Amino acid sequence: MSEPLVHTLRPRYAECDREGIVFNAHYLTYFDVSITELWRAACGGYGVMLDRGIDLALAEVQVRFRKPAKFDDELTLAIEIAHLGNTSMLSRHVVRHGEDLIAEADLRHVFVDLESLEKTPIPDWVRQGLEPWCVPVEGTGG
Amino acid sequence: MSEPLVHTLRPRYAECDREGIVFNAHYLTYFDVSITELWRAACGGYGVMLDRGIDLALAEVQVRFRKPAKFDDELTLAIEIAHLGNTSMLSRHVVRHGEDLIAEADLRHVFVDLESLEKTPIPDWVRQGLEPWCVPVEGTGG
Amino acid sequence: MSEPLVHTLRPRYAECDREGIVFNAHYLTYFDVSITELWRAACGGYGVMLDRGIDLALAEVQVRFRKPAKFDDELTLAIEIAHLGNTSMLSRHVVRHGEDLIAEADLRHVFVDLESLEKTPIPDWVRQGLEPWCVPVEGTGG
Amino acid sequence: MSEPLVHTLRPRYAECDREGIVFNAHYLTYFDVSITELWRAACGGYGVMLDRGIDLALAEVQVRFRKPAKFDDELTLAIEIAHLGNTSMLSRHVVRHGEDLIAEADLRHVFVDLESLEKTPIPDWVRQGLEPWCVPVEGTGG
Repeated sequence: MSEPLVHTLRPRYAECDREGIVFNAHYLTYFDVSITELWRAACGGYGVMLDRGIDLALAEVQVRFRKPAKFDDELTLAIEIAHLGNTSMLSRHVVRHGEDLIAEADLRHVFVDLESLEKTPIPDWVRQGLEPWCVPVEGTGG
Repeated sequence: MSEPLVHTLRPRYAECDREGIVFNAHYLTYFDVSITELWRAACGGYGVMLDRGIDLALAEVQVRFRKPAKFDDELTLAIEIAHLGNTSMLSRHVVRHGEDLIAEADLRHVFVDLESLEKTPIPDWVRQGLEPWCVPVEGTGG
Repeated sequence: MSEPLVHTLRPRYAECDREGIVFNAHYLTYFDVSITELWRAACGGYGVMLDRGIDLALAEVQVRFRKPAKFDDELTLAIEIAHLGNTSMLSRHVVRHGEDLIAEADLRHVFVDLESLEKTPIPDWVRQGLEPWCVPVEGTGG
Repeated sequence: MSEPLVHTLRPRYAECDREGIVFNAHYLTYFDVSITELWRAACGGYGVMLDRGIDLALAEVQVRFRKPAKFDDELTLAIEIAHLGNTSMLSRHVVRHGEDLIAEADLRHVFVDLESLEKTPIPDWVRQGLEPWCVPVEGTGG
């Protein structure tokens, strides 16, 4: 049974708007931090993949904002991999503050060559590294 | 026949990542600038609405990234209103660089009381101001 | 003998430019995070001061950039208080990556009333809380 | 007689904090935009210099914040070159809102090789392009 990778993050003063709540755009940066943390746990760091000439490009994102987060709240960010294709990755993100659901998101990234920005297959060592955080495919059980 | 409101924007050096392309989170800020520009054209400025104690809160966003935008590219940002409910607004955004489609997005905002952050009905003067940029409802023609 | 408050921070992918190095503006945000961390240690959190109607406004800043910091580097940020006046605070900041000196900065903040943005005296409970991180005045020894 | 290059910029909603005023870090980004605009006027665009393998790195900055700027204020940003050395450039920045002085800054940049990040002499074509915005050296008049 897989579990999401969870890390914590406190919104900075500079990230909050005149309502004192986190401005929406910063959540995309937070989700990117979650990916950095996942790569650290899964593959020894995102920089390792960059050094091998591979990067991720965001192709599509959907975010549902449930409750506002405030300055200095200790947020928990959960990430899991919903699908790994040949060149693409679907990740699911949940942001909470204590019991409160703050935001949910689905991101589709494409693996790209760092130089050409062209699609490139997911390397085996990345695929293996991510496996513990991949949601099992439903309906394949015996 | 309505037309989207179009304005131009050049990505800043600080908004581009190591690929020299605009980092994804900044697009949400760009869409917010489009709303500021729409309010300027429609209602005399977003500050007028803030002064009357009303703000917008983003409830949901979907972005599809088609091609990367680069530092200092002159982008055109188009915005139109797909739907005005009782308290919510659906806006459609298209980002282009010349003929190239860079990104498309759908945003759902909720009108909120500036103090309580609770939902509040769209004021008539805002509804009237936005009308020229509202997409006509399909299938209602004679 | 006082010691600076030290915390760690990893630059985010979104904060690095096409050189793969941290864009300069983000350092001001990092210094602000240091102040948030100092207030947490000194006064039970920056939010406590905001709740009492007091905020800090930056009046002057000088930064010297020594070496570039890179994406995901584990930086140490040190902050100490060089001077507390009647309404103003001078803080010194040093950013390091391992042994490497990345940046040094001097910031002068003014305590302001949250509503009026007018100068206000430093509250005693803040002054007492900050004391352990105040650099002793030189030349006053016996 | 030289005059500063002046351009206008409206702070975005996302750049304002809970006071409704521009957070300090964004000014460094604004000054960087001024440099982009100066290069457009002086040298056909900053991208031309990047394409030739040369970039600027900020070595030192001093900012004095005089009055807060607010969301959507039409700010004027003035930039002039105070000194061009062999590899370094000192620029002076003034931000105004109408008659109000918002901020003043002095930035020292170093010209660097885009690949190595090592110092490199200012190219002649850049030096000539910048000349109209260079403050005349005092006391050399006949």
